[in-house]
Amino acid sequence: MNFHEYSQKMLPELEEEILSSIVNDIPDSYPDLQNMMKYHFGWNENSGGKSSQGKRIRPLLVMLSCMVCGCEWRKALPGAVSIELIHNFSLIHDDIEDQSSIRRGQKTLWKVFGISQALNTGDAMFSLAQLNMLKLGNKINKSVGFDAVHLLNDTCLTLTGGQNLDIAFETRDIVSEDEYFVMIGGKTAALLSASCELGAIIAQSSNVNRLALHSFGEALGLAFQAWDDWLGIWGDEQLTGKSTSSDLISRKKTLPILYAIQKSKPFEEKFLNETIDEANINKFTQMIEDTGAKEYTEKIAKYYSNLAEKSVKSIQADGIDSQKALIELASQLLNRKN
Amino acid sequence: MNFHEYSQKMLPELEEEILSSIVNDIPDSYPDLQNMMKYHFGWNENSGGKSSQGKRIRPLLVMLSCMVCGCEWRKALPGAVSIELIHNFSLIHDDIEDQSSIRRGQKTLWKVFGISQALNTGDAMFSLAQLNMLKLGNKINKSVGFDAVHLLNDTCLTLTGGQNLDIAFETRDIVSEDEYFVMIGGKTAALLSASCELGAIIAQSSNVNRLALHSFGEALGLAFQAWDDWLGIWGDEQLTGKSTSSDLISRKKTLPILYAIQKSKPFEEKFLNETIDEANINKFTQMIEDTGAKEYTEKIAKYYSNLAEKSVKSIQADGIDSQKALIELASQLLNRKN
Repeated sequence: MNFHEYSQKMLPELEEEILSSIVNDIPDSYPDLQNMMKYHFGWNENSGGKSSQGKRIRPLLVMLSCMVCGCEWRKALPGAVSIELIHNFSLIHDDIEDQSSIRRGQKTLWKVFGISQALNTGDAMFSLAQLNMLKLGNKINKSVGFDAVHLLNDTCLTLTGGQNLDIAFETRDIVSEDEYFVMIGGKTAALLSASCELGAIIAQSSNVNRLALHSFGEALGLAFQAWDDWLGIWGDEQLTGKSTSSDLISRKKTLPILYAIQKSKPFEEKFLNETIDEANINKFTQMIEDTGAKEYTEKIAKYYSNLAEKSVKSIQADGIDSQKALIELASQLLNRKN
Repeated sequence: MNFHEYSQKMLPELEEEILSSIVNDIPDSYPDLQNMMKYHFGWNENSGGKSSQGKRIRPLLVMLSCMVCGCEWRKALPGAVSIELIHNFSLIHDDIEDQSSIRRGQKTLWKVFGISQALNTGDAMFSLAQLNMLKLGNKINKSVGFDAVHLLNDTCLTLTGGQNLDIAFETRDIVSEDEYFVMIGGKTAALLSASCELGAIIAQSSNVNRLALHSFGEALGLAFQAWDDWLGIWGDEQLTGKSTSSDLISRKKTLPILYAIQKSKPFEEKFLNETIDEANINKFTQMIEDTGAKEYTEKIAKYYSNLAEKSVKSIQADGIDSQKALIELASQLLNRKN
């Protein structure tokens, strides 16, 4: 089986488990809480439908990582559900923090139900994620459940640390590359890394495999973010659905921009002091390219991408097919055009 | 030892543990996260100091309940820290949801650091609470840690359910008494009940004791809230520090108000349609009293207060002193004037 075939098999069961957790784990006394979660997932009559659902990268990583360690993927389902719920809890809160109005083609939760209810629904989803992780305690044993929920909360703390830096960077002039990597390490890489490591915990695999999967997910996350930053300036707007000027206009501290600031005093001064708009955006993009930032960002993405592949190959795999599927998933993520 | 002596002994160690968790469990890469938490707890140079610290009722319940079951209270410290962190996480988010500017005499976290950072710091505190609960796994055993963290998340889900109803009630005309009890059952009673039950889990006590402590905390919470509602209309403003007209003016659905609505059509119509202000507040208070709502609220508070005492006495206690201290704590809470 290849990656596509695996995901075709896994995703319907995953969707069913998430929905069933929302409907059955949340007491009926709180119907609005259930409805808001369904709306966010694109599952109620007012949602955007299929197109407002995510790609489910993280739960697929959990289930494939579990298989690589020789364990049946269905055993990992509660962990996969938990990770997807954590990811979506963080999206609900991020949208409030960033005042974003649209996510996956539909109005964000706070835009429809107000900040108070959306914030509180995010908190409820956080708890629901924990309860799903704890299901591993009944399905396998309490020790596995304990380790899994420990990993989850270490990860959430790192996630909020990364988010704290990300918000703080918005109002700062200068951010070093080191600080940038600490930030994306928390905000992007931590949850991808935890998804993979979780697979090894559920399979009760060796520490060597646990570490290898952790490194794979972390490298994947860093490569993913570097590539995302590249697409933010040089991507095809038609494919990404996102303007290639928005990162610059909003003065987002992405990797190529930080590199250009570090390499070119004139760019730094213009970036900090001049208005950036559609009229002069090309001049700014050209200045960034002149510093070699485009190639540098590609180099970083490639470096972590290679590291990810090396890590996944170092796994003492029980499932060759799933190992290939993980490599395929990584390569799809890192060669994506959107 | 009586309740006062117990709390004098327990509280300094509790405070030290909370501070040490903030400083040591949050990675140094996120200093702002640490600082914001310290500010909230009244521990940094910009905080209001001693007066901005809470009463620590919930962690005291954890430690005393653990003692009642014959276990040394220090064993329960990580659980007590966890419960206090959860309580404070919910205060941080509640203040954003209610747009409250002042808490315990100092500006609320979001007023000082903005909504985005405060919301995210609340999330971080949620994770920190979970990690402290998981310390029981290392201190006692993984099974206890697992059960404790399960209780914590069941409770948090109920807490957010109660909060969901509370926010929804604000914009609704009519709320039934049943709905009111579901709401305060989630918002107030669930965490008090979990605090007591947790003590039994940590002490690895019998199911009978676990249930008795659960019931004690739940009844205590319901009595506490009914009494709080009573103080909201008939309390001494000098002692409560809170205006006795604010619940009426903001049309809060408290127990005496709901009772009066249910008993008197004329009151219901006036309450729903007329402006309530300082000029006519006495008329409204009189109308409420005429329905017997004051006595009814006292009766409910007394009923749950008796239930709480009965529950605590049904515990097969190993520590008579701590059992008395629990009764003392309950009676202080329910005879308070503020």
